[in-house]
Amino acid sequence: MIGLDWGTTSLRAYRLAPDGTVRERLDRPGGIMTVAPGGFPAAMEAAIGPWLSDGENAVVLCGMVGSRQGWVEAPYLPCPAGAAELAAATIELPFARARARLIPGLTCTDAQGVPDVMRGEETKLVALAPRLRDALVCLPGTHAKWARIEAGRITGFTTHMTGEVFAALSQHTILARTSTDAPHQPGAFARGVAQAQQAGGLLHHLFGARTLHLMDRLAATETRSYLSGLLIGHEVAAALAQTGATLVDLVGADALAALYRAALEQRGITVRLHEPDLVAAGLHAFGSSLGWN
Amino acid sequence: MIGLDWGTTSLRAYRLAPDGTVRERLDRPGGIMTVAPGGFPAAMEAAIGPWLSDGENAVVLCGMVGSRQGWVEAPYLPCPAGAAELAAATIELPFARARARLIPGLTCTDAQGVPDVMRGEETKLVALAPRLRDALVCLPGTHAKWARIEAGRITGFTTHMTGEVFAALSQHTILARTSTDAPHQPGAFARGVAQAQQAGGLLHHLFGARTLHLMDRLAATETRSYLSGLLIGHEVAAALAQTGATLVDLVGADALAALYRAALEQRGITVRLHEPDLVAAGLHAFGSSLGWN
Repeated sequence: MIGLDWGTTSLRAYRLAPDGTVRERLDRPGGIMTVAPGGFPAAMEAAIGPWLSDGENAVVLCGMVGSRQGWVEAPYLPCPAGAAELAAATIELPFARARARLIPGLTCTDAQGVPDVMRGEETKLVALAPRLRDALVCLPGTHAKWARIEAGRITGFTTHMTGEVFAALSQHTILARTSTDAPHQPGAFARGVAQAQQAGGLLHHLFGARTLHLMDRLAATETRSYLSGLLIGHEVAAALAQTGATLVDLVGADALAALYRAALEQRGITVRLHEPDLVAAGLHAFGSSLGWN
Repeated sequence: MIGLDWGTTSLRAYRLAPDGTVRERLDRPGGIMTVAPGGFPAAMEAAIGPWLSDGENAVVLCGMVGSRQGWVEAPYLPCPAGAAELAAATIELPFARARARLIPGLTCTDAQGVPDVMRGEETKLVALAPRLRDALVCLPGTHAKWARIEAGRITGFTTHMTGEVFAALSQHTILARTSTDAPHQPGAFARGVAQAQQAGGLLHHLFGARTLHLMDRLAATETRSYLSGLLIGHEVAAALAQTGATLVDLVGADALAALYRAALEQRGITVRLHEPDLVAAGLHAFGSSLGWN
């Protein structure tokens, strides 16, 4: 079978053996923002046509391809939900060359009634759930997710706009003027994480990145790492405050996961790191539940 | 005498009567960023030349004109400081047509050793101090300031990058896509302020502006006001958490001061609003202490 994680800016495809082993993988731009209305079947065929010609006949998809801007809008499934509810809510896609089913995203609501949403991460969480049963899972990214798994089901989650806020602030505020591109500076990052644990609030702490530089106590090469530490530190503090967890399961690409690991460990949290390709295992699990492996 | 509040992006000049009454005022672009190195005497003469020709011979200046990018760098004076210390630390400027003295900015350091700075606001605070003696003063803006006045002296302050963060997030994140220019929406603003009082953290609350819109519970015309309420709400929460104040003295231009007033009153804080031209009174006070009125 074939698994597809089709997001806003990229497409990741996996050709999966019956036991879930990744036989081939494809990772390319060509996210849903590049697909014209009505162009999804052709875009998918362009990506995985060779595998279909080679005999594959079943495709499981997840990610923003199921959003309003995607191929077909798959309504969000409310939490708590697990693999069974998600599998029952998959949607068949009109595709001539293979069976194709879309995994819906999840939604939940906080105590004040403000909704939250995810698309794509639920598939990674389904892959993790049987291993963990009960856990707090962090999935860093442009819109980082923190999800609670209880008794193997996803009971709730929160999104933090950390990655996107970092990009906006580092490029479009006064902080851009006094920061230069430089390799990651672990010392400056740790100082930012430490400051995020103090009183004052994020909007005040941000100005510290300016004043520390002004007073020659933060180099231009350190500003971005300090800002990154402040933002990830505030995210981690808020996420932990709501759960009291002392152990976090972390899923993400190497460089970003390393930052979150450092911030969590600086706070005394134990971190279990999981493989970034977890989505392939999740897609395979859904395929299996459909009898496609 | 003449008072000049010369900032990064604008210049405000006041022709002051001996009793401090503003006889004439000038408000124009031409902030220090528009002045070439060595061009400050000519730029000042271009602004206030007619008043000098009319007999004025003394100018008191405050603001970013005393920064590293300004006319002469006036070292920051450490808090606590009051009118007397600031007056003693004014710096004479080389100007042919009148006596000219520059008021320095202030600096202070938080419990973690992170410095904070202000330039220009100290002059407004000096004008307020004799009236208030002890107070928590909020000065909204691109870089909003919260200052403590004790026994008539400025004992400390914090800067919050709220205005600049609002501009960056409203223009350069996913929130820009689902927000349209619209008049201020007080209901949406109040919802943002209320959400800022809840758990979850700012980086999470920001995503709510996205999801509420996605779920048709926040109109595109309301997104900017909701975001404004979230950010000002977080600033106010952080500033109040550090002081326990129940009364805030607010200094600012009408529209922005109205937002802060609404956010503070929503939290049950009593607000005393002061005139935005307070800087003229402060500049006059320094002139008086120099015997220039």
